[in-house]
Amino acid sequence: MNISIDGRVRHCRTVTFDAGRNAVQLIDQRRLPHRFQIVAAADYRATARAIADMTVRGAGAIGATAAYGLAQGARAFRGSDPAKFTARLELVYQTLQAARPTAVDPVNAMNTVLRALRTGTTVAEQQALALAAAEEFANDDVRHCAAIGRHGEKLIRSGANILTHCNAGWLAFVDIGTATAPLYAAQKAGRKFHVFCDETRPRCQGATLTAWELAGQNISHQVISDTAAGHLMQRGEIDLVIVGSDRVLGRTGEAANKIGTYTLAVVARRHRIPFYVAIPLSTLDWDLRSGRAIPIEERDEAEVLGAWGAVRERSEPVYMRIADPSSGARNPGFDVTPPELITGIITPEGIFQPRALWKNRRRLGLRGLL
Amino acid sequence: MNISIDGRVRHCRTVTFDAGRNAVQLIDQRRLPHRFQIVAAADYRATARAIADMTVRGAGAIGATAAYGLAQGARAFRGSDPAKFTARLELVYQTLQAARPTAVDPVNAMNTVLRALRTGTTVAEQQALALAAAEEFANDDVRHCAAIGRHGEKLIRSGANILTHCNAGWLAFVDIGTATAPLYAAQKAGRKFHVFCDETRPRCQGATLTAWELAGQNISHQVISDTAAGHLMQRGEIDLVIVGSDRVLGRTGEAANKIGTYTLAVVARRHRIPFYVAIPLSTLDWDLRSGRAIPIEERDEAEVLGAWGAVRERSEPVYMRIADPSSGARNPGFDVTPPELITGIITPEGIFQPRALWKNRRRLGLRGLL
Repeated sequence: MNISIDGRVRHCRTVTFDAGRNAVQLIDQRRLPHRFQIVAAADYRATARAIADMTVRGAGAIGATAAYGLAQGARAFRGSDPAKFTARLELVYQTLQAARPTAVDPVNAMNTVLRALRTGTTVAEQQALALAAAEEFANDDVRHCAAIGRHGEKLIRSGANILTHCNAGWLAFVDIGTATAPLYAAQKAGRKFHVFCDETRPRCQGATLTAWELAGQNISHQVISDTAAGHLMQRGEIDLVIVGSDRVLGRTGEAANKIGTYTLAVVARRHRIPFYVAIPLSTLDWDLRSGRAIPIEERDEAEVLGAWGAVRERSEPVYMRIADPSSGARNPGFDVTPPELITGIITPEGIFQPRALWKNRRRLGLRGLL
Repeated sequence: MNISIDGRVRHCRTVTFDAGRNAVQLIDQRRLPHRFQIVAAADYRATARAIADMTVRGAGAIGATAAYGLAQGARAFRGSDPAKFTARLELVYQTLQAARPTAVDPVNAMNTVLRALRTGTTVAEQQALALAAAEEFANDDVRHCAAIGRHGEKLIRSGANILTHCNAGWLAFVDIGTATAPLYAAQKAGRKFHVFCDETRPRCQGATLTAWELAGQNISHQVISDTAAGHLMQRGEIDLVIVGSDRVLGRTGEAANKIGTYTLAVVARRHRIPFYVAIPLSTLDWDLRSGRAIPIEERDEAEVLGAWGAVRERSEPVYMRIADPSSGARNPGFDVTPPELITGIITPEGIFQPRALWKNRRRLGLRGLL
């Protein structure tokens, strides 16, 4: 997206590659929204660390980071011995995969790079092919998000009030984002609307990342506590909900997403407010037969018992304890929304009713994944 | 309640009066849960400030504080001129009322004290009657909460998982609390159960005050983000919801309470989880004919955009900014739950279906308030 940095507007992606320095460049998302900083991972180990420590997060963004990281590791190889090169690639692959073991995007992204690389014969040729494939992966991510925007923007009329949860924005992908793509496209089409950003406790990605994104694009928005969404729906102040997803089951139409999504969908249905889930095709899971089978990560209770923030304006964010010092917490990271509460799934291929995904599985890429 | 302070167990009320020093003594709730401190308001102006700055909060607690504050102001009067005494009383009353202008409890509490005081003839007699009436008001508050506990504890079976929101605990009253009263009574009856404390953004009264209360009583509990309640309900991990209320409409059965309550009630209904509201009779509003007429306070956006917490263990809580520095917020403080989502209203007089309040209005004190 175009953002203003130190008073100058420039185009910025979440993840880029500096071929000259063989470095992966990332917006440091741990410091947002208090500080904007681009950090360079100078070798594949640093790239893996950046995934592990959440410098970069979001399905598409970590996919592209892993793709670039694999190319980076390949390009750092000195020599021409194919066997040694293959062994090095294996090490790089394992290191990057281990950085976020439950995520599927880095694996899919790196497999794409490996397939391209194997069409080359010499090490040098393969190194060049790896980088080209990583760039292609990142560009595809942007194209898919743009297509989501083209389909989704039709849902946004002028004057609409839209609720979103967590961050499925350009920071979570290479650019544009999924849940935010319809917003950015509607803005380009000249429509005026207002966005409520659910704070999204415990990590507050709505208050920090999504609000920061929308502020950078001059989109009218306000942060709300997660507790306020139901009241605003009840009072007729929300017309449309758009969220992202971590996994949509192609067989059932169930959508796993950041904790709190299910609750929003239940209240939206009570008030007949359209509820959409925006995803790239890589988020579709064609194997699982029930949302009950989706593992729900139980995360560190410290997230619930405190928060990260800036004590002074734009100071480095620090952790502080909010809750009673002797109390513990439960911290499920995700929940599963059933298809009957989802109005539509916005994909790069169009908008589908959740129970119509399976019937459209060829078009939605099932063949390609087998 | 009995709590352990510096290793010694002692009985403690939220609000007490030191007749010798003519001071209102309050638990400083702004420092909880990080620090426990009882502060003395040395004159009625200090007592009014303690209400205004949230040293003391909660319907019953500010009612008793205002009652004591009025007695305090009366007792500080030197002289025997009835006209001057009456003028002083008026000033004290206005000062205490202005400290939390939208609350009805301080007004009701002070009117009770005034009625008692006027049965005396001399200033000295009236001063004594005022203090006796304030003490009586505080004791009544405790008795009412105990009665709520006796009725409500029958709802709690051993092994139950109970969700509560915000703090309608002993800190919000003089002792025992309303939503917490059934918990404390069930514990006394020997039952074991588990409580999930909704964090209750933006002020986090669940994570700070309710969790602190339950920890002090050794009741098994965990804090959850407000976003997690729906998921736990969906997975069958919550058997019962009990919340307090700021105003229940006797004519319709609608309940206004801390923002987020309505959302919980909607999701609880979807999963057929009993949803109870616990209140003293003073919370019943017999006049309003629609929940739409309840004014919803829009509070300072700083509450949503940040939080108060301790940067080091048990250090003084400080404010920090969580959200994007250039973004604003909406901050409705309360919402209204309709009667069809409320299983029952737990009162000192028993448990009533919300739509049966009007039919039982004599028993529920309507005559007494007219």
